[in-house]
Amino acid sequence: MRQYHVPADATAIDHLRMVERPEPACGPGEVLLRVRAASLNFRDLNLVEGRRGPARPDGFVPCSDGAGEVVAVGAGVRRLKPGDRAVACFFQGWADGDIRAETMQTALGGALDGILAERVALAADALLPLPPGLSFEEGATLPCAAVTAWHALVEKGGLAPGQTIVLLGTGGVSIFALQFAKAAGARVILTSSSEEKLAAARRLGADATINYKATPDWDQQVLALTGGVGADHVVEVGGAGTLPRSLQAVRFGGRVSLIGVLTGAQPLADPYPILRKSIVVQGIYVGSRAMQERMHRAIVQAGIKPVIDRVFPFEEAPAAYRYMKAAGHFGKIVIRM
Amino acid sequence: MRQYHVPADATAIDHLRMVERPEPACGPGEVLLRVRAASLNFRDLNLVEGRRGPARPDGFVPCSDGAGEVVAVGAGVRRLKPGDRAVACFFQGWADGDIRAETMQTALGGALDGILAERVALAADALLPLPPGLSFEEGATLPCAAVTAWHALVEKGGLAPGQTIVLLGTGGVSIFALQFAKAAGARVILTSSSEEKLAAARRLGADATINYKATPDWDQQVLALTGGVGADHVVEVGGAGTLPRSLQAVRFGGRVSLIGVLTGAQPLADPYPILRKSIVVQGIYVGSRAMQERMHRAIVQAGIKPVIDRVFPFEEAPAAYRYMKAAGHFGKIVIRM
Amino acid sequence: MRQYHVPADATAIDHLRMVERPEPACGPGEVLLRVRAASLNFRDLNLVEGRRGPARPDGFVPCSDGAGEVVAVGAGVRRLKPGDRAVACFFQGWADGDIRAETMQTALGGALDGILAERVALAADALLPLPPGLSFEEGATLPCAAVTAWHALVEKGGLAPGQTIVLLGTGGVSIFALQFAKAAGARVILTSSSEEKLAAARRLGADATINYKATPDWDQQVLALTGGVGADHVVEVGGAGTLPRSLQAVRFGGRVSLIGVLTGAQPLADPYPILRKSIVVQGIYVGSRAMQERMHRAIVQAGIKPVIDRVFPFEEAPAAYRYMKAAGHFGKIVIRM
Amino acid sequence: MRQYHVPADATAIDHLRMVERPEPACGPGEVLLRVRAASLNFRDLNLVEGRRGPARPDGFVPCSDGAGEVVAVGAGVRRLKPGDRAVACFFQGWADGDIRAETMQTALGGALDGILAERVALAADALLPLPPGLSFEEGATLPCAAVTAWHALVEKGGLAPGQTIVLLGTGGVSIFALQFAKAAGARVILTSSSEEKLAAARRLGADATINYKATPDWDQQVLALTGGVGADHVVEVGGAGTLPRSLQAVRFGGRVSLIGVLTGAQPLADPYPILRKSIVVQGIYVGSRAMQERMHRAIVQAGIKPVIDRVFPFEEAPAAYRYMKAAGHFGKIVIRM
Repeated sequence: MRQYHVPADATAIDHLRMVERPEPACGPGEVLLRVRAASLNFRDLNLVEGRRGPARPDGFVPCSDGAGEVVAVGAGVRRLKPGDRAVACFFQGWADGDIRAETMQTALGGALDGILAERVALAADALLPLPPGLSFEEGATLPCAAVTAWHALVEKGGLAPGQTIVLLGTGGVSIFALQFAKAAGARVILTSSSEEKLAAARRLGADATINYKATPDWDQQVLALTGGVGADHVVEVGGAGTLPRSLQAVRFGGRVSLIGVLTGAQPLADPYPILRKSIVVQGIYVGSRAMQERMHRAIVQAGIKPVIDRVFPFEEAPAAYRYMKAAGHFGKIVIRM
Repeated sequence: MRQYHVPADATAIDHLRMVERPEPACGPGEVLLRVRAASLNFRDLNLVEGRRGPARPDGFVPCSDGAGEVVAVGAGVRRLKPGDRAVACFFQGWADGDIRAETMQTALGGALDGILAERVALAADALLPLPPGLSFEEGATLPCAAVTAWHALVEKGGLAPGQTIVLLGTGGVSIFALQFAKAAGARVILTSSSEEKLAAARRLGADATINYKATPDWDQQVLALTGGVGADHVVEVGGAGTLPRSLQAVRFGGRVSLIGVLTGAQPLADPYPILRKSIVVQGIYVGSRAMQERMHRAIVQAGIKPVIDRVFPFEEAPAAYRYMKAAGHFGKIVIRM
Repeated sequence: MRQYHVPADATAIDHLRMVERPEPACGPGEVLLRVRAASLNFRDLNLVEGRRGPARPDGFVPCSDGAGEVVAVGAGVRRLKPGDRAVACFFQGWADGDIRAETMQTALGGALDGILAERVALAADALLPLPPGLSFEEGATLPCAAVTAWHALVEKGGLAPGQTIVLLGTGGVSIFALQFAKAAGARVILTSSSEEKLAAARRLGADATINYKATPDWDQQVLALTGGVGADHVVEVGGAGTLPRSLQAVRFGGRVSLIGVLTGAQPLADPYPILRKSIVVQGIYVGSRAMQERMHRAIVQAGIKPVIDRVFPFEEAPAAYRYMKAAGHFGKIVIRM
Repeated sequence: MRQYHVPADATAIDHLRMVERPEPACGPGEVLLRVRAASLNFRDLNLVEGRRGPARPDGFVPCSDGAGEVVAVGAGVRRLKPGDRAVACFFQGWADGDIRAETMQTALGGALDGILAERVALAADALLPLPPGLSFEEGATLPCAAVTAWHALVEKGGLAPGQTIVLLGTGGVSIFALQFAKAAGARVILTSSSEEKLAAARRLGADATINYKATPDWDQQVLALTGGVGADHVVEVGGAGTLPRSLQAVRFGGRVSLIGVLTGAQPLADPYPILRKSIVVQGIYVGSRAMQERMHRAIVQAGIKPVIDRVFPFEEAPAAYRYMKAAGHFGKIVIRM
């Protein structure tokens, strides 16, 4: 069985290596999954390039997001059976309720070995059925980016029809957030520096778009588009210098979600707007299995199709990483096994 | 100026009288509204037929729901000016926050004189701009039924994409609830005894419908349609004997809203399912101005058009009441001035 | 090892039998607990007398509430080690988040064998450390009654300083609710038919008490004690005919918790007050491990001591059941192994 | 009638002037209050020294916090009558619900003239009865600091027994927060640089105290005191460089309130902990009349006495300002008329 390894001292995409390993054993409560597709997040790039993230043993397996077929189940497993199509959960140990410090030690492709492999053994309690109507490639995009967007908007954001949501850029989280916000009857304002991407976002339902290169003070444009009131919620994915503008763009009593895919958190020179405008700034770090279950239900009900920018074969996984690093994508980057 | 009166001892629609009165004065903080349209609720029928409701002086003016044009404003009024198109709020004294006992003393067409008149003086703080794109007739349907549905589903119901909502019948509250639930990405199961109305509900977006005459144990059908789990929320408008079935139809940890338009509350023989299934049963009595504002925003954003069954001229208001009593309507009944 | 059995057709306390069985095995993820104390709930009485509750196999072991010492741990258990003092959780399968239908299938002494035994094997994930400062007897009172009271008041009740809480009677749930409410700075009004118990409740901190025999319309007394406003929250444990009065006693927008220890749910002749007063009626069925953890923390911080009415030796468990049936107790009834 | 004025170009306490003015008129919906006591907040110091705050006309009247006697009521006022003892609300226009941009334009001693005067005309809807048992001096401390602490902890903080709350310093907000947290059964850790103040805080109930001069890495001490978990809530009043430590001191999923009394907001060099630990950072700006009402009820029920450091006569108001600037106080500084 083939899988990818990241050496402990990796600092570049080139350090990714494909290796051959024996098929993993399937312990009690575990499921052996034949991975059919994986998808990438900025976090995966951070790890291989040696930025932020927990120390990890040599030769760890990257990637959190995957979908596949169950090929065997361990003792005591009743939720799944061989032949089932399943999507992994980002955290092996967050079934429901609020996050805890311990939860972080159960992240796939972070504290724990991930799924960039032909076969992986996963906790049966951390797999969900592939939503009907989705392909493995589409299912593989859900665990990190989609759950993060869902968590921010729905589980902690009080998303409701008529609200105005501001989304920054066209990465995976922002595009899922666009789809969820539109499914929920909200108005979406999306920023990007590319007219082509803005047009694509409008085709997906964005009500207004702002080219932040042409309009660097995009926060003022958000205020203008909301009659001076400001947006209800800005999903802040952490580009350079965006947080101060997000605080300007949001209304009194509004909300800013700080998302866990930040390539690098930027200093906040002046937190005063948070208190002056009674803003809630909430850190969001993916989400629980229960959140993902509710999200799957919404995806099926609303007929949402994950937006996949490009699919790479397993053998060319490093090219997929490079494509992400180039940051020209719109939606998700997938690796097919 | 003409208006309708209900005598203190009224017990029948025939007791409604049209009378001529001087134009009302417009005190400090008040607005004189030229009413252009009103709409009916079961509550209006209850009052004229002498059922439930606060004691009231002889010759009170019925109806809570109306829209019109501002013709004059009193001292200190800044929110509105002559010429503005406006919708009334059901409560003259519930701007924001939670309901209080005192709030109930400020209901139009209940504790206070209502709007079935050519001119009324209303608190400027209890009027909102007519949502752009709506006619006076459409705007007049919003204060009671639409706000009630919005309050139940969005403000207190945690409505989210993917949820399953059960709606009983095709009165004003249920049809608005259908529109809001669909705008928010939820799945709707609606019951009625009329195949024609069920077909109309499907055209408005209902995902599944149940003819409760053909299928009296409609709760079992809801369970079947939800894989045995039950619905997330039943909006219970109080037909005979529906509450026990609503409790069966809802999931563990689900929600049943009891709506304030009940013609008559039915006994609940066995509250045990509430505790066995950890159900929340919540009484909903219309809502605040702030809720209505958020709802207006959603109506505009989602392009919702209130469903009007029939419009009667002002002179034939009693016929409108009779039409409501016949209970054959689908959506709202409107009276045009 | 000795344990108590309830035959499938049991209808009386006399049907309880003590039997000798081999020590249970301790599977992967399980802990072998030497039970040192158990405590009774009305639910235990219901089961042995053949009322409400799931069908169960012949010879099931009753009781949900127990505390003891860990004597062995199965494979993969890291949360606990031999020698640890621990309290069971009511549900073997509700770690965190909201209740689900499946949760109910994991109740000790209900769907699953209980802890009225000298040794039991329990899921390691459903045990918590005995709160420091509590004896085994005190710890054994917590899993059902205390968690239920905590869940109703704190987790779902928004308990805050200055609120008025109404408690009915002096059973386990009510007395824990009294202690939590007082620890949280609330005002407590408690009812009973016994002057002696009312005096005991006042010594525990009850601010006002009502003898419902002397004052059958105790709801009017609650209104008088709250300046006509009504209580914020009534914890309704389901005596005959109390629910209609609870709905009268609560304020507009107030809350009534229906508790899962009801000996028999009473019909609700008129649900109208629920909607007229915008009341929330919420079913509460014990709670999750996470709730119990937070409750343990509160018990330690506030120095709460569970109120134990009487302790019976293991050999006299049926006498403990009879004592509960006599309903003369104040607080909890404990069985010591 | 005498009152204090602040010139538009004021930059120092010395610029405060006492002037003689005619008694204010009492318009419709207003109340004429004979102010008996006022209390100071850092905000008052900021204004007179020309820092942050809205532009204001020459000769505005400072101070938001006051209590006194009603001497006359305007047309339409029913909530109050001459002779009533009353406390002002900070905002003249925030009765209930969430804050809005417009709310800010109704702050006493900020956007609107304040209460450092012998007589003021105030909106009757923005006065509450003096809580029974409190003096005018004690009542005068409540509108800003106490409501802010209450809002942060109770209304938006989910305060519950057993939680750990961290408070910074011994200003008005922190001392009220200490009293509310203890009344609600929480554990309080308080920091100060003065051993004397720490001892005073312990006498008021603080469970643990940290001298941040002796222990500059007080966040590590908070972690040690909470078994490595961190606090549930830090009420951040904005001393230099405290925010990064507050983010370290709080648990995963915990909460940091940013309070509106900051003398100067400090840059946040690294917001990364917010997302890594799923922290909620919430801006709090005083609160609504409804919050203050609930707080009054808690103060009465819990027998809380506002902590007054020192009382100055009206004629020596500038000395009170100077005393606040010296920052040696513990609790509130009061000016008696």
